[in-house]
Amino acid sequence: MSEYILNLLPLHEGEREEFEAIAPDAVHVCARSSTVTPEQLAAATIIFGWPRPEVMKGAVSLKWFQTMWAGTDEYTNMLPEGILFTSSSGSNSRSVAEHMLTGLMAVCRRLPAYLNSQRSHVWQDEGTMKTILGGTVLVVGAGNVGSAFAGLCQGLGAETIGLKRTVTGPVEGFSQVCAMDELDTLLPQADVVALTLPHSPQTAGLMNAGRIARMKDDAVLISAGRGSVLDQDALVKAMQGGKLWGAALDVTDPEPLPPDSPLWDVPNLLLTPHVAGGMRLEITRRKCVEMAQENLRRYLAGEKLDNIVK
Amino acid sequence: MSEYILNLLPLHEGEREEFEAIAPDAVHVCARSSTVTPEQLAAATIIFGWPRPEVMKGAVSLKWFQTMWAGTDEYTNMLPEGILFTSSSGSNSRSVAEHMLTGLMAVCRRLPAYLNSQRSHVWQDEGTMKTILGGTVLVVGAGNVGSAFAGLCQGLGAETIGLKRTVTGPVEGFSQVCAMDELDTLLPQADVVALTLPHSPQTAGLMNAGRIARMKDDAVLISAGRGSVLDQDALVKAMQGGKLWGAALDVTDPEPLPPDSPLWDVPNLLLTPHVAGGMRLEITRRKCVEMAQENLRRYLAGEKLDNIVK
Repeated sequence: MSEYILNLLPLHEGEREEFEAIAPDAVHVCARSSTVTPEQLAAATIIFGWPRPEVMKGAVSLKWFQTMWAGTDEYTNMLPEGILFTSSSGSNSRSVAEHMLTGLMAVCRRLPAYLNSQRSHVWQDEGTMKTILGGTVLVVGAGNVGSAFAGLCQGLGAETIGLKRTVTGPVEGFSQVCAMDELDTLLPQADVVALTLPHSPQTAGLMNAGRIARMKDDAVLISAGRGSVLDQDALVKAMQGGKLWGAALDVTDPEPLPPDSPLWDVPNLLLTPHVAGGMRLEITRRKCVEMAQENLRRYLAGEKLDNIVK
Repeated sequence: MSEYILNLLPLHEGEREEFEAIAPDAVHVCARSSTVTPEQLAAATIIFGWPRPEVMKGAVSLKWFQTMWAGTDEYTNMLPEGILFTSSSGSNSRSVAEHMLTGLMAVCRRLPAYLNSQRSHVWQDEGTMKTILGGTVLVVGAGNVGSAFAGLCQGLGAETIGLKRTVTGPVEGFSQVCAMDELDTLLPQADVVALTLPHSPQTAGLMNAGRIARMKDDAVLISAGRGSVLDQDALVKAMQGGKLWGAALDVTDPEPLPPDSPLWDVPNLLLTPHVAGGMRLEITRRKCVEMAQENLRRYLAGEKLDNIVK
């Protein structure tokens, strides 16, 4: 029986033909997450893309699902039993890394205050700024995103230290890779602390009041990955008390952040609504397409797939 | 007769002693621009720092003045005739370059819109973003600042082209250096156009409506150097008509920008109040001190000084 590929990737001209060339015997149905029908879901043996998690229970013929996301927790309990689940881990690393660097530099140069002034048509000097040149950047989570971010920081003249659960050797972008249990020792040395961890029982609340207190008074905190890693109340309290130079958070807990959260109004805290990754850069979109194509080729050839989640 | 050095540099502990060691026979008077007295100004044979230009006519004994600024136009008509005038050109290049990169990345990732949303406690996705990876950055003015900025852009994966009045060879940070009269030819190729020119009769109004029109529809314009280089009215008109991805301006004409200027409210235009350079980073301050010390050593030894303006 031939495969029924439900392709929900945002394809450009010529890319459907690329998939057809890899799997000439399959049925190729291209659709959008917003318009996909229950019939298409029920017929699909392979799904590429980002269907809404709640519709996945209707995918009764499904054998393999490759999400476009790097993060996979939203699907964890939504997939039919026994299917092969792969991610696009790495596809948006560059985008997330650039967003983290942008946030870092924005708070270093006090852009939140300057944009406030601009809105009020006020020409006002906000004083000293900060550079990461010669500073130490501690990246908590030395995966694809952490490595890409560290590489950008190195390019700007920073020392980079990465933390991993298991240290198996050097990781690109880092001058040094250490085990996660050295976190408390390393925090007081860092000018920038960047969180790039997924959500898990081990990571939830990892960056708590005690660890924020161990940071330098004028350090910058960056949070990508998942919002649950950071104790937001502790951060608000610390920063309201004058701790930290600034912070840039692209993830919160919960999301969307409720309108009455005190996090919105912390000075020199930049908040973006989980937009570091996704399909916002063409290079990310194209990489997802290529990763799906490579895994499709492997799947049909009976080879082991990349980025297996379970 | 011994020198009277009026040192208006923001010195740290031990740095006065460094100057005294270089010129043990001189009188060293350390003061601040805001508190300097007419008597000190009248007695000074050497001034380091940034006195207000209008007080310089009182410096009747002055032989040599080294400003802390890279730009020197504000002093041009304010100095007594016949004095030696040097600048601190290059001292803040890294700071200005980082500010330019921050502004560039901020508009690439739509931070002006995200900060608006943050102020309103609104969690709202602003869609596509832009990266300079693989793009072409055209730097109009391949001096110290332009070279430093280009180097940072190269580190992020951009091609860089520099424009100079006189091309004498390669310049650090640039893959290519061209003559200024190639500007019109190169504008349509650039994803980012960065202005880093000083004010002069030749540069005033250089970036006019016609040249803005030659830019790519989704290019980014960065302006450092001096505001007079850019025709602001033309930029406002072009951007209101949907031209350009965004712009980041640290300089305007005049400064401060009047509250009723339409420039304040152009979407995805980031405006900062001429704060890219100055003494906002410790690395800049220290470099100015070192440049003053090196030139003082040369002055006393009868050698040619660095950064002679006239």
